[in-house]
Amino acid sequence: MDTSTGTAGLYDTIHRRRDVRTQFTGGALARDSVTRILTAAHAAPSVGLTQPWDFILVEAAATKDAFWHHVSEERAAFAAVLDAERAARFSDIKIEGIRESSLAVVVTYDPARGAPAVLGRHAIAATGVYSVCLAIENLWLAATAEGYGVGWVSFYRETFLQQLLGIPEPIQPVAWLCIGPVTHLEGQPDLEQHGWRTRRPLNAAIHHERWSHRPDSDTLTDPNIRLV
Amino acid sequence: MDTSTGTAGLYDTIHRRRDVRTQFTGGALARDSVTRILTAAHAAPSVGLTQPWDFILVEAAATKDAFWHHVSEERAAFAAVLDAERAARFSDIKIEGIRESSLAVVVTYDPARGAPAVLGRHAIAATGVYSVCLAIENLWLAATAEGYGVGWVSFYRETFLQQLLGIPEPIQPVAWLCIGPVTHLEGQPDLEQHGWRTRRPLNAAIHHERWSHRPDSDTLTDPNIRLV
Repeated sequence: MDTSTGTAGLYDTIHRRRDVRTQFTGGALARDSVTRILTAAHAAPSVGLTQPWDFILVEAAATKDAFWHHVSEERAAFAAVLDAERAARFSDIKIEGIRESSLAVVVTYDPARGAPAVLGRHAIAATGVYSVCLAIENLWLAATAEGYGVGWVSFYRETFLQQLLGIPEPIQPVAWLCIGPVTHLEGQPDLEQHGWRTRRPLNAAIHHERWSHRPDSDTLTDPNIRLV
Repeated sequence: MDTSTGTAGLYDTIHRRRDVRTQFTGGALARDSVTRILTAAHAAPSVGLTQPWDFILVEAAATKDAFWHHVSEERAAFAAVLDAERAARFSDIKIEGIRESSLAVVVTYDPARGAPAVLGRHAIAATGVYSVCLAIENLWLAATAEGYGVGWVSFYRETFLQQLLGIPEPIQPVAWLCIGPVTHLEGQPDLEQHGWRTRRPLNAAIHHERWSHRPDSDTLTDPNIRLV
């Protein structure tokens, strides 16, 4: 492991980062920290330098409550399609910290920004929303480095969130991110702790020169990655 | 600015990162660095802990050449839709370093992984491919911290890349990433240097509690962000 300052700090943050639902304390965020976090998100790469994201900062309890009720309904809808074993497991899993987290950042995508001739988007329209996700990961890592937890809530209908926050067409909500001080970050993802799913070994995800069919790839356990 | 090791290292990397096309040297990558970079990508958050990404490492010159020819055609197709002023500007911009970069990492998305009941994907199908983008940003930051450059090429048709690398349905290519040693990283994005587009001030992207219509938001220059 490279131990130079920049590399070590980055890797520490990347590997400590968790999707937080349970550990939010509700404590205050430092204004300077929030500025650095949003500045980091805004420094992400974007197709055609469009920076097609916006950040809606939500603190109002009434808004959080309304969103939480909607998410609870969507949780029930998902539970209804599970078989008995999965449903039992799912019932133990907390999927969001909407009301317990201090700040929500709703990240949106504006496909009209820089349009019509967005450099790099003509062949793949989705590269615009891909850019927004790069900003979200920067935000997530920055918040982790600042000592906060982040949880991405995706149990919602986009039209509901557009109406709740007055987001006009054609702007699309991409994520509701719960952010705030936490008691701690867990060492293992929640879904793994609850037996929902285990992490895949990295070497199962690596192919050389062409796609390699490996029906056993989900069960590979050899820790020796064969790299170039 | 917080100057603790972790925070400073992360922010330094986030703000130095560039989308590289011109500065690749073609030099070798260190095997340990590549392992750390892919390990960082693989540590990204993913919907339902599906880790739906794969990484195809491409070094073969023949593959790079074939992809480069296709990208050149797509470049010409984009240039053909521009007006005269934009076309002239675009003609000066190098959009890829496919042949000059040492390694290509093609990142793909497998919608079948963990399906059908992916926790967190039932209401928004795109959260699967969003996860892949989070992994790409981790990869990009890790490679930057390791001293390499990264360039995302998106001037291609997904079906072409599927055929070139034998990627089967339903797996979708998301990015061709050029990676390798570079002479340096520029301080300013290429597209801004070439007058294609300027960066938007952060405060234009921030809203409070609800979406705020600001027709002048692209031209705001007040550096004072009003935060919570």
